[in-house]
Amino acid sequence: MASRKEVAELAGVSEATVSRVLNGVGPIKEETKRKVLQASEQLGYVPSALARSFARSKSGNLGVVMPYVPKAHLFSAYFFSEMLSGIGNKARESGMDLLVMFRTPDEVMNYTDLFRRQKIDACIILGARDDPGELAALQQLQQEGHPFCVMNQHFAGQSFVEVDADHIKGSRQAIRHLTDQGYRKIAFLNGPDSYSNSQERLQGVQMGMQEAKMELDPSLLLEGNYSRRSGQEAAGHIANRLHEIDAVFAANDRMAIGVMHGLRERGIPVQDFPAFVGYDDSDAAEMAVPPLTSVRVPFYEMGELAARKLIDEKVGSPPANVSSLSSVSTRHLLPTELIVRASSIR
Amino acid sequence: MASRKEVAELAGVSEATVSRVLNGVGPIKEETKRKVLQASEQLGYVPSALARSFARSKSGNLGVVMPYVPKAHLFSAYFFSEMLSGIGNKARESGMDLLVMFRTPDEVMNYTDLFRRQKIDACIILGARDDPGELAALQQLQQEGHPFCVMNQHFAGQSFVEVDADHIKGSRQAIRHLTDQGYRKIAFLNGPDSYSNSQERLQGVQMGMQEAKMELDPSLLLEGNYSRRSGQEAAGHIANRLHEIDAVFAANDRMAIGVMHGLRERGIPVQDFPAFVGYDDSDAAEMAVPPLTSVRVPFYEMGELAARKLIDEKVGSPPANVSSLSSVSTRHLLPTELIVRASSIR
Repeated sequence: MASRKEVAELAGVSEATVSRVLNGVGPIKEETKRKVLQASEQLGYVPSALARSFARSKSGNLGVVMPYVPKAHLFSAYFFSEMLSGIGNKARESGMDLLVMFRTPDEVMNYTDLFRRQKIDACIILGARDDPGELAALQQLQQEGHPFCVMNQHFAGQSFVEVDADHIKGSRQAIRHLTDQGYRKIAFLNGPDSYSNSQERLQGVQMGMQEAKMELDPSLLLEGNYSRRSGQEAAGHIANRLHEIDAVFAANDRMAIGVMHGLRERGIPVQDFPAFVGYDDSDAAEMAVPPLTSVRVPFYEMGELAARKLIDEKVGSPPANVSSLSSVSTRHLLPTELIVRASSIR
Repeated sequence: MASRKEVAELAGVSEATVSRVLNGVGPIKEETKRKVLQASEQLGYVPSALARSFARSKSGNLGVVMPYVPKAHLFSAYFFSEMLSGIGNKARESGMDLLVMFRTPDEVMNYTDLFRRQKIDACIILGARDDPGELAALQQLQQEGHPFCVMNQHFAGQSFVEVDADHIKGSRQAIRHLTDQGYRKIAFLNGPDSYSNSQERLQGVQMGMQEAKMELDPSLLLEGNYSRRSGQEAAGHIANRLHEIDAVFAANDRMAIGVMHGLRERGIPVQDFPAFVGYDDSDAAEMAVPPLTSVRVPFYEMGELAARKLIDEKVGSPPANVSSLSSVSTRHLLPTELIVRASSIR
């Protein structure tokens, strides 16, 4: 590989000048610039990515912010890994690298600083929650016209670019599927209320119930934290009231499978199980015994879409264009689909 | 945020000089340097990360190379996601970001270029395979003294830093567990031979058989590709010879669960299943019906260890030190453990 020294000699300038040209530092005569660039070209001199990035202010990195809890094996959670695969697929196609950053649940990210420090050209935010600190950080990002996209979280009244799936429809379909078969005593194991995804599932459940001239029994509305363990814990509650419950709808497959596992641990035979409907349609749903009816969420496609929006529409375009784009409210809702399996059939 | 202009004014120098000091470009008087740094400090001026990195030649990024196959949802594979979680945990503690890069199976990575371009300070390589191109690329990395670590792949005769688990012992334990219970007609569903992990599993199986005065029946040595689907395909072969097979050892849980699923699809009741032992001890093993006996691999801890080796021992130390370190052969083998569940008990 050609050295800076050789470029300097060929261009007839000092090495410092070569660096200053390639780093875009300080005032430089056009003539000098031309000579240096010509020499670099001729010798195939490749300055460090940092130097080139410094010159064109692009890192070539697509940022992905992931929620982080020590010892919680986050990438194992089906939907994070699927979305990251979709994001990675699109990034790879576009020759960008993924810069994966972790944030603790209570930490307020200084997203803007990541752009100022030119670590990333655009940012996808996973696992955001609707709290004031988070909101302020995202609003600042938008004001400064940095390209970003929020996934699986809706900020009402904001004009952020968001990619999500239609969880109201998905949950409504799940309940309709149960009520259409005559199930009446339906328990709903939801996730924490701090996620818009949980709130949307609850809305869908209530709509589905109303359509069947039913109401959700408050004593059958249970809350877990989307972990399998929280499902196993809920199983105790469900086992105690088994005669009052003929169906269970869980807000994700992990919790549904946790409940099934918990019932088995308590010696309840599968033929005495209530009907089960899960959510996500993860690998585990198909492999479950009985195979688990579940609401399919196109996580992989959601990841690809978020990356495409940012890479094609944002990173390419000039800042002015960027801010005008991100001031347009765009919430992209991908369709969900109920996949019926044995667990929910009378 | 203070601007370069303000720093220049306070230091009584030109903006170009401020940049040159902070970028370490060209010859600069100590006195000038002192004034600029003092002014930057006083005003809390933060030059772009690129400028600072350019000055100290550190990106603050830990590179992770992942195998990539379009549409294959890689992060979903249990062991990649677990290792990545462990790596991410350690990176987060050390204030480093993860730069995740994808490589197609037949692509020869120019790892060295990533360091030359200062995109990363150290690199962890997942899913490497033992082929000449890969080997040459890694040898070049080592010759240039770049800190890197290979995971789940052994390069015989090389002195690379490698982190892996003891798959010979793990497979041997699995077979012993079966032969000790009197199982004799054991089918072994292995992964592709191009991975040292598959070769080590085969060695362990053969050792376990020999210890029981048995030999592996070549017609019962099946090959899959570590996917669940390849397990479902193998199920056809196993179903046809069910009377000749009393136990199945699969090289990972996904294939074992695929075989179980394939047998179910063929209407074979669980009481007629052969004994099953899987590998990885993924979430799915515990949830399987019957719960799957499996060899636990500490993927998360392996990821943490690889990141720690690089961050603590390498990134911190000067290049000279680095190359001397990486010229020491170090293969770190973490212990595996057989987790016995109902699937393999007589």
